[in-house]
Amino acid sequence: MKIELVTVGTELLLGFTVDTNSAWIGRALAEIGVHVVRRTSVADTPDAIHDAVDAALARTGAVLTTGGLGPTRDDVTKYVVAELLGMPLRFDDAIWAMLGERWARLGRSLVESNRSQAMVPTGGTVLPNQWGSAPGLWLDAPRGIVIMLPGVPTEMMKLMTHEVLPRLAGQGDGRVIRSAVVRTSGIGESVLAEGIGALEDELLPLSLAYLPGVTGVDLRLTAWGLEMAEADARLADATARLHANIGVHAWGDGDDDLAALLLDALRAKGKMLAVAESCTGGLLGARLTEVAGASAVFLGGVLAYADAAKRELLAVDQQLLTNHGAVSGEVAEAMARGVASRLGADLAVSITGIAGPGGGSPEKPVGTVWMAFAVNGAVTSQRMQFSGDRAEVRARAVQAALFGLWRLVTSANPALL
Amino acid sequence: MKIELVTVGTELLLGFTVDTNSAWIGRALAEIGVHVVRRTSVADTPDAIHDAVDAALARTGAVLTTGGLGPTRDDVTKYVVAELLGMPLRFDDAIWAMLGERWARLGRSLVESNRSQAMVPTGGTVLPNQWGSAPGLWLDAPRGIVIMLPGVPTEMMKLMTHEVLPRLAGQGDGRVIRSAVVRTSGIGESVLAEGIGALEDELLPLSLAYLPGVTGVDLRLTAWGLEMAEADARLADATARLHANIGVHAWGDGDDDLAALLLDALRAKGKMLAVAESCTGGLLGARLTEVAGASAVFLGGVLAYADAAKRELLAVDQQLLTNHGAVSGEVAEAMARGVASRLGADLAVSITGIAGPGGGSPEKPVGTVWMAFAVNGAVTSQRMQFSGDRAEVRARAVQAALFGLWRLVTSANPALL
Repeated sequence: MKIELVTVGTELLLGFTVDTNSAWIGRALAEIGVHVVRRTSVADTPDAIHDAVDAALARTGAVLTTGGLGPTRDDVTKYVVAELLGMPLRFDDAIWAMLGERWARLGRSLVESNRSQAMVPTGGTVLPNQWGSAPGLWLDAPRGIVIMLPGVPTEMMKLMTHEVLPRLAGQGDGRVIRSAVVRTSGIGESVLAEGIGALEDELLPLSLAYLPGVTGVDLRLTAWGLEMAEADARLADATARLHANIGVHAWGDGDDDLAALLLDALRAKGKMLAVAESCTGGLLGARLTEVAGASAVFLGGVLAYADAAKRELLAVDQQLLTNHGAVSGEVAEAMARGVASRLGADLAVSITGIAGPGGGSPEKPVGTVWMAFAVNGAVTSQRMQFSGDRAEVRARAVQAALFGLWRLVTSANPALL
Repeated sequence: MKIELVTVGTELLLGFTVDTNSAWIGRALAEIGVHVVRRTSVADTPDAIHDAVDAALARTGAVLTTGGLGPTRDDVTKYVVAELLGMPLRFDDAIWAMLGERWARLGRSLVESNRSQAMVPTGGTVLPNQWGSAPGLWLDAPRGIVIMLPGVPTEMMKLMTHEVLPRLAGQGDGRVIRSAVVRTSGIGESVLAEGIGALEDELLPLSLAYLPGVTGVDLRLTAWGLEMAEADARLADATARLHANIGVHAWGDGDDDLAALLLDALRAKGKMLAVAESCTGGLLGARLTEVAGASAVFLGGVLAYADAAKRELLAVDQQLLTNHGAVSGEVAEAMARGVASRLGADLAVSITGIAGPGGGSPEKPVGTVWMAFAVNGAVTSQRMQFSGDRAEVRARAVQAALFGLWRLVTSANPALL
């Protein structure tokens, strides 16, 4: 089955809104073997919507629209499509009752303009919307299928998941496009490619894409046009092969977050973590505490931005700062030791570096970062060089710290943790 | 002048890529009075591209395409459009030389497949691309104008800014759509609407939109279809009126960042800042140090996540923690006092609260946040209640802290700072 998307909204054409709905819908449909072959965005005007839906029906016979289902004068999608398909509107008492209940819960009462939201094309199927006020609509007419969803992203996603995808499942040709992602850190794209290049042929017919970013290189495996069971089996097998081949650098899959995995691993071992941040200024702490339940294993730490903070809060010796500079292995080690001992942490990490744009020198260019790890009182440090602007250097440094901690916590070496 | 966008790429239809280019282009064109009337996304196949460009030319007479200009087999946009407009391709020596120089700088040499990137439609104008390898193209044919740009966002934006917008300026009908944004914090949408509601009529023909988010409510003023000079004059006047009417809550315009403005104000007064964060876990420090040059006025602080960190690093009395709980005015004040005194800061803020999803109680539900400000040794605290999930509560708390600091630093009261 093929389908076209028609997204309605003048704000899309003017660029006031970025169309994230289309990408989400494209992925969700491809995963069940329904292929989006064209996407059109038009203004909230009857003629533009009419032309776009009419042409899509003629070309493809199936259309999914988003937007233009609300109660205001600009919301005309339903009227245009009902007329196009010759399905006159009728007032639906069930929708009206549901709207009344919803409004009552919010402590408001319905007004006349809400009546338009209870009008539905005769012969169409109502897709109940528990997450907002405009129901979705599914029209099956001689000219083809038109599915209409609201443009609010949360409502669109809920209606897709609960109403549209179950109805479309099995209507595809059985050939799906599905992906899996293996997440890596601490290894460059080219080294990675050298390591797994030989594997690529063995993974066929799956394709492999390298997606480098500030958290490392994500590897996206895609099965194109296989049957669902075969696609999933091949993706699972290929994911396992990549993990086996890449080893410790492949720390997760899909939407995995390294901070969350690290906190889980610490919890499993009953170990407590502390951090000392200079150039990242809180970004590492923010990543860790973004995860609910972080308090079980994260004690906190120090934003040792100025030298005074390094001395006062972490007992870093002024002599070290003078002799080696704040960005040095010596200072990084003193910071990690200081925060671990102040807070009684089993594990601590420190980050001190030059995020830029200023502050670089020939010996320590922008992107130079020293990092130290304190494990049960023993401290090691390493120098790293990151590329990119200030935001990228900081994000890469935080990810490197998380990855270093992750390696220590998941190591089989009992001397570590 | 009206124009249509045709964005080319199978990855757009599959949802592997979110089409952010279209929104950027839509805004940039509207600002010079060129109106995007339709946007179509198609796969990298010659037929699909041909149909979409052909129909757009017939309807509107002007088309801007993105994507499909690279050196691989999938990149067919140029070939399809050249054939459609009857402008046969020729090899361009200047482009070939520029590519060679670019490759040499990157330490690589050109291969045969790169030759395709030097092929241009005869009679077309080359838009030199210093930021990537595929030049843009401008074709002016009897059927209309087709502008082709690469799909890489940075390259597209540079070519739009330096090559396309200057050529299109003045080709519009002189009627532009331009916006200005006034940024507010610390005041709810409904209170704001009550305060400036009476102003709305006076601002006509500008429209006013309320855009609530975690940093507060942004107010977007839009001039629709005025001449550029008039639009800009009216926007400047309306922006000034909103500021005068809203007062201190309106802290900035456009893309202003409250953290950057706060750091500038501290620098102007020669005052040093420190922070103590519990539930925000580093997010406030991260926001401040995202700004280059923060080190001139930001000393650092403490991530006092666990009680042990509050006691050890901020000298918060265990008795206060036991009697009032970590989320209390007493503890917030002790945290602010502690960090200010440890680091010798002129100004300090502390944040302690319940970000959720767990940890709430009837007396202190999720979203309860206590915040304290220490100014030259004097400390005040306030309780706030934020809505939303964990991420939203944290982001709102950080913005409230920045806004509180901003009010103190910009106050005319000499007793403050």
